[in-house]
Amino acid sequence: MNPSLAGPVLVVGCGLMGTSTGLALRRREVEVYLDDLRRSHVEVAESRGAGSGEKPTSVAMVVIAVPPDHVGPAVVDALREWPEAVVTDLSSIKAGPLAVVRAQAGADAARYVGGHPMAGSERSGPVAASEQLFDGRAWAVTPSPDADPTAVEQARVLATTCGATVIELSPDEHDAAVARVSHLPHVMAVLAAAQLNGGPETHLALSGQGLRDVTRIAGGDPRLWRQILGGNASHLGRILRSVRADIDTLLTGLESSPDEIVKVLERGVHGTDLIPGKHGAELPAESTVYVHLPDRPGELARLFGDAGESGVNIEDLRIDHDPARPVGLVEVVVASDRVDTLIDALGERGWRAHR
Amino acid sequence: MNPSLAGPVLVVGCGLMGTSTGLALRRREVEVYLDDLRRSHVEVAESRGAGSGEKPTSVAMVVIAVPPDHVGPAVVDALREWPEAVVTDLSSIKAGPLAVVRAQAGADAARYVGGHPMAGSERSGPVAASEQLFDGRAWAVTPSPDADPTAVEQARVLATTCGATVIELSPDEHDAAVARVSHLPHVMAVLAAAQLNGGPETHLALSGQGLRDVTRIAGGDPRLWRQILGGNASHLGRILRSVRADIDTLLTGLESSPDEIVKVLERGVHGTDLIPGKHGAELPAESTVYVHLPDRPGELARLFGDAGESGVNIEDLRIDHDPARPVGLVEVVVASDRVDTLIDALGERGWRAHR
Repeated sequence: MNPSLAGPVLVVGCGLMGTSTGLALRRREVEVYLDDLRRSHVEVAESRGAGSGEKPTSVAMVVIAVPPDHVGPAVVDALREWPEAVVTDLSSIKAGPLAVVRAQAGADAARYVGGHPMAGSERSGPVAASEQLFDGRAWAVTPSPDADPTAVEQARVLATTCGATVIELSPDEHDAAVARVSHLPHVMAVLAAAQLNGGPETHLALSGQGLRDVTRIAGGDPRLWRQILGGNASHLGRILRSVRADIDTLLTGLESSPDEIVKVLERGVHGTDLIPGKHGAELPAESTVYVHLPDRPGELARLFGDAGESGVNIEDLRIDHDPARPVGLVEVVVASDRVDTLIDALGERGWRAHR
Repeated sequence: MNPSLAGPVLVVGCGLMGTSTGLALRRREVEVYLDDLRRSHVEVAESRGAGSGEKPTSVAMVVIAVPPDHVGPAVVDALREWPEAVVTDLSSIKAGPLAVVRAQAGADAARYVGGHPMAGSERSGPVAASEQLFDGRAWAVTPSPDADPTAVEQARVLATTCGATVIELSPDEHDAAVARVSHLPHVMAVLAAAQLNGGPETHLALSGQGLRDVTRIAGGDPRLWRQILGGNASHLGRILRSVRADIDTLLTGLESSPDEIVKVLERGVHGTDLIPGKHGAELPAESTVYVHLPDRPGELARLFGDAGESGVNIEDLRIDHDPARPVGLVEVVVASDRVDTLIDALGERGWRAHR
């Protein structure tokens, strides 16, 4: 069973992330209060049902949902104002804010446990918020070694109550991880998009889906992203120098050593295979069905037709001709859960088909 | 009216692109013949209805659909074998193959006009082919200055017959354009994905949709992409050096000048705005409806409720409080074609709403 979250919860910052947190918690009937310097943000969040805009008399947890540069001071303020509360945040960088809290909050720092839901949108503000924003997403929980275990537990329960899956790691490990899986991809999207400026319009008329996919996230707010990248300067700097070295390898390869280009491209293919859920989630497992094919004109077309009538989609197909025999063996690749359907349907239509 | 394509057409190379061309032409009842060194590719393409695998006795057009490194020699062979035919190709680079053709085919080179449909798939081979692959896509037609005007016209008609839109530009201009809108994005996806290798698994557990989008195309075949990038070395090298300079700016910015980071990020935002159809096609035009809001608790929630019941989706909302008046003005942003519905529905429910 999911342990329940101790409320009331005060959300400080009613933008996309804070308002979505309020909505997700209200869905589970947690008592939520809302605060923001921009009173109109509180009003919109409140009217959408994310919580109450009144001042709470007591809170068990404060969720800081302000831009990265303001997280450290906001956590310190919250620890002082609510001496019994667990304080967490939702920002993209973790080591820097923790250092501020440790330096300024003394023993109270034990009540702070960082958090970072891996969810977002190109849109911002409380109108774009959704109670489902965190459903099924990863949510990093990043306790410092001297964090109060009860506070860590509550930060984890916040994530699961909002529908997310907890990944616990240290603040520095978190920052190293997001440098690689979030901040670098953002920079690469920006650098690809930046090169589109100043070109003739006919160049851009050749744009395809690949360009759109690579550059989609480059539209994010530059002031917010300056804070994120600047807050992770050390890890991001290391990885950007590694990318620069790869670019140098490619530049040399373009001039004189094409094999070096292939090596970089292969590292890219291997990297995409490492992304969890990427293939597993989108492509079903595939299996091969072997079909004996008489060496007569039209047989392959008849096989496609019969497979199509069975309702099974052919994902790939290889032909193995044995010159010594009048029958070829065709390897038909289909989704694994369709193998039996295909074999039965082909058998009914007179084909010899097997696994 | 669309001028009609003179057939028969011989497609040389029955992979994804060649087979899709055959299927798209057969849809318009053009006579198509298929050829490929891999006889099994021809059989699969033929059985899917992309054309006939028999040897033609005469052809009016040859479409070379082989990997980039082989395009030049294949065009030269086709010009020799079919002295009356227009010859075109489908490859991602245009200046290099043309140079081979000019050097080796003499006056026959006037019958060659390069082409490049901006469509593809991460899958390859004739099974992945589709008669709809080119529908609505851009198709570059890249005549040399001394190309026969009739040949240029037929290369254009091939594209439109396959469902695509013609963008005509010189071979060198084409290569400069694709360096920017296709080859650089591929490299950036590869470089982002390459950095995922060697990291701990917990890092990758934080992967989100942004990473997946940026790296999707990085899975393309390294040997094919080595030929594409190597064939466009001069343009791609220039743009990669420009990216390297941006990375240097970012590295300096991370250490000491955050304003420089913002400038690069803003160039990225502006670049994404330049991609045609990106915003226009996916986001409908939006308009603002002004609603007078009594300064009483619960009025904003009532407004959201009434707007929701009208079936109109609120895209954004801004509140303008005038301290001197007991009524606030709310700017409600909705899809332009929903403005009248919203104003009518709110009016019926007692709100003062107008454009």
